[in-house]
Amino acid sequence: MSAAQPSSLPHDPQSTGAQPTSVRLMGVQARAAARVLRSLPTDRKVAALHAIAAGLRANASAILAANAQDVQAAEASGLPEAMVARLRLDARALDGIAADVEAVSRLPDPVGETTPPSTQPSGIRVSTRRVPLGVLGVIYESRPNVTVDVAALAIMSGNAVILRGGRETVRSNAALEDVIHAALREQNLPAHAAQVIRDPARERMLELLKLDDLVDAIIPRGGAGLHRYCVENATVPVIVGGIGVVHIYLDPSFTHDPADVTRAAAIIHNAKVQKPSACNALDTLLIHEQALGTLPDIARDLHASGVTLRADPPAHAVLSAAGIAAEPATAADFGTEFLALTASVRTVASLDEALDFIATHGNHTDVILTRDDAQARRFVQDVDSAAVIVNASPRFNDGGQLGLGAEVAISTQKLHARGPMGLRELTTTKWVVEGNGEVRG
Amino acid sequence: MSAAQPSSLPHDPQSTGAQPTSVRLMGVQARAAARVLRSLPTDRKVAALHAIAAGLRANASAILAANAQDVQAAEASGLPEAMVARLRLDARALDGIAADVEAVSRLPDPVGETTPPSTQPSGIRVSTRRVPLGVLGVIYESRPNVTVDVAALAIMSGNAVILRGGRETVRSNAALEDVIHAALREQNLPAHAAQVIRDPARERMLELLKLDDLVDAIIPRGGAGLHRYCVENATVPVIVGGIGVVHIYLDPSFTHDPADVTRAAAIIHNAKVQKPSACNALDTLLIHEQALGTLPDIARDLHASGVTLRADPPAHAVLSAAGIAAEPATAADFGTEFLALTASVRTVASLDEALDFIATHGNHTDVILTRDDAQARRFVQDVDSAAVIVNASPRFNDGGQLGLGAEVAISTQKLHARGPMGLRELTTTKWVVEGNGEVRG
Repeated sequence: MSAAQPSSLPHDPQSTGAQPTSVRLMGVQARAAARVLRSLPTDRKVAALHAIAAGLRANASAILAANAQDVQAAEASGLPEAMVARLRLDARALDGIAADVEAVSRLPDPVGETTPPSTQPSGIRVSTRRVPLGVLGVIYESRPNVTVDVAALAIMSGNAVILRGGRETVRSNAALEDVIHAALREQNLPAHAAQVIRDPARERMLELLKLDDLVDAIIPRGGAGLHRYCVENATVPVIVGGIGVVHIYLDPSFTHDPADVTRAAAIIHNAKVQKPSACNALDTLLIHEQALGTLPDIARDLHASGVTLRADPPAHAVLSAAGIAAEPATAADFGTEFLALTASVRTVASLDEALDFIATHGNHTDVILTRDDAQARRFVQDVDSAAVIVNASPRFNDGGQLGLGAEVAISTQKLHARGPMGLRELTTTKWVVEGNGEVRG
Repeated sequence: MSAAQPSSLPHDPQSTGAQPTSVRLMGVQARAAARVLRSLPTDRKVAALHAIAAGLRANASAILAANAQDVQAAEASGLPEAMVARLRLDARALDGIAADVEAVSRLPDPVGETTPPSTQPSGIRVSTRRVPLGVLGVIYESRPNVTVDVAALAIMSGNAVILRGGRETVRSNAALEDVIHAALREQNLPAHAAQVIRDPARERMLELLKLDDLVDAIIPRGGAGLHRYCVENATVPVIVGGIGVVHIYLDPSFTHDPADVTRAAAIIHNAKVQKPSACNALDTLLIHEQALGTLPDIARDLHASGVTLRADPPAHAVLSAAGIAAEPATAADFGTEFLALTASVRTVASLDEALDFIATHGNHTDVILTRDDAQARRFVQDVDSAAVIVNASPRFNDGGQLGLGAEVAISTQKLHARGPMGLRELTTTKWVVEGNGEVRG
């Protein structure tokens, strides 16, 4: 009989962990690892995550030493302090990362969920079964915690992952990969389930983006430039996200009761100030002209927290009359994601005008503050964004806050996943058909 | 107060239907139409489809005249008769297309389905709502029925669609678009809900592929070259499909009872012969060496139907001994989609060898014929293809056969949709959050 054709490189739980010579080879190894991972029972995935968490704690000094080298090199290269801060780990942060891995291990495993079979007229029984995506490519910037978070989410959802972190975290990520590989080997699992591209050259990232015969999805985590680069260069499907303009529409019905004005001010303050660098932070306040009288109350708190308001003429006039500094808005201040303590204010004459504005500029998170249920229903129906929120802060558009437990990224595209992506969004389904000799007529 | 910024071009139900000057303008118009469609109640979508079906019947002579011109031009240009046949419409075919539109109107509308709200620790109530994708771009080859089928599926799922058919069907598609537009206007709906790119230049298709700020998904329907072109050039997310190698593994347990051998022969014959040009037709038979004795019985029927078998040495020897002609297989005959009356045969020593082979070459539809339940379970678990089938023909991997009612395409990628895509696969979800003044702590 014919010799078996070599199907793919076998996974090798005892491999040395030496860096493969090419990203394509990493892809082949990831595919082989994914075949093992996709059939793992939940308890083995949980055990792998526990081993990783234990490894992080046991190897803290080696990881922190590697991280200190990254920090030193980043400082020497003149990287801005804000960037260096994102890169820096300490014992407490590392313990938090290990605890996050343990938290992922407690999430429900979506793999294997099966729909009830339906019998078709032909006699076949049809169901779908939830299965891992296969091999993920995740590209991110300088936070080393992402390396571990994403590896944990990938393994728990039965996927292999190829990680490409920032140039500034190469040593930290290498140390973290060593710990992950040792933990996987200890559990007799393929170390290639989570691989880090250690060569920071952009060409390696480009190879990953074009590996469509081996990688099932690319998930970029970073700024608009990174997402754009992936969309324009990848042949692997990309899940874009994280970028988008956040609006709050304030309806007059939410300003009749002084307690509501206080609530509105608190929501708008929380939306802008709690974490201005987040993608779900407020960018543009759309205020009904009949609610303009409350704008000074809202603006005072923002102003006190250092927020710069860029207001259209009616809003600017109201703020000036109340003695609150604001800049005049230009066209560029609308449809812009600020990622800073800046927000624009635009006056609208109606809910319709607000909806038209959001139809043009929104896609991420949009909020209505209203006491009119019919208006709330119209807003929720008409606004076509990843998250539509009534009477609460846009900052709730977050995997943890929406009940996913953890998130790998926030998608703003519509295919596959929209909004925060948890374990379930790292899976797909396959059709399962059972018959008894049926043929198609 | 400030003047409202023009949010987007308004849809104009009374527009003349003149061809827009650019694909980008079509995209802007499609987006505006999509905003109307996404909130339509089911009955208005049903009425639109009925109006389209009625329009097709009422305008049959104009459509068939345009189609006759396309056919004449195709014949004059020397297009192969098989291609001309795919292009040709007659009164009966057109009536069938209208009936298909009516069938789509009877499918359940997935839009608006909402998950039960969950209250989170913060107090917010969270649910997801099923909504249309928005604007679809569908690129296909010469069958004019696709123009109507896809428009009907798009409208029924609340999406706008931009259609780009083959160069050979320009006149047919223009006539069909005229009918669809008239029907939509009659229903006071935006005609731009379904637009045909009438200019067959490849540059227009390329514009569509790069319209990622306006188009939510590209769905190619055609050969491998078209899919590859889309993947390599699109910045809009692409759902690839239709391409893939189909395997049937025949286990000895399915050959002990002569009735099973008859069933196996019937399934394999159906898989290869019923529609050899289909993507779910058999490519490679993997036969266990202990089942080789039944290969002549299986091959005789195939042979009688004009199938060429390309067999590996053990299979070839068995066929030769039985006096059945077969060609020797080369490496290129495995992992190859034939789309013709050709199939390859490979002998394997075990289920494991079959699984390894499928792990390398499969991703579309794979079948096991077995009487051993444990083997069936292993096959279903390990094979990572869009459809995994036990003891039935691979030809069942089809939207109609699996119970979707209709399909817009068959996806072989893993993101978003896998296997046949019906109305539900043309939708996405959005997060809906209701609060009472909650802010994030």
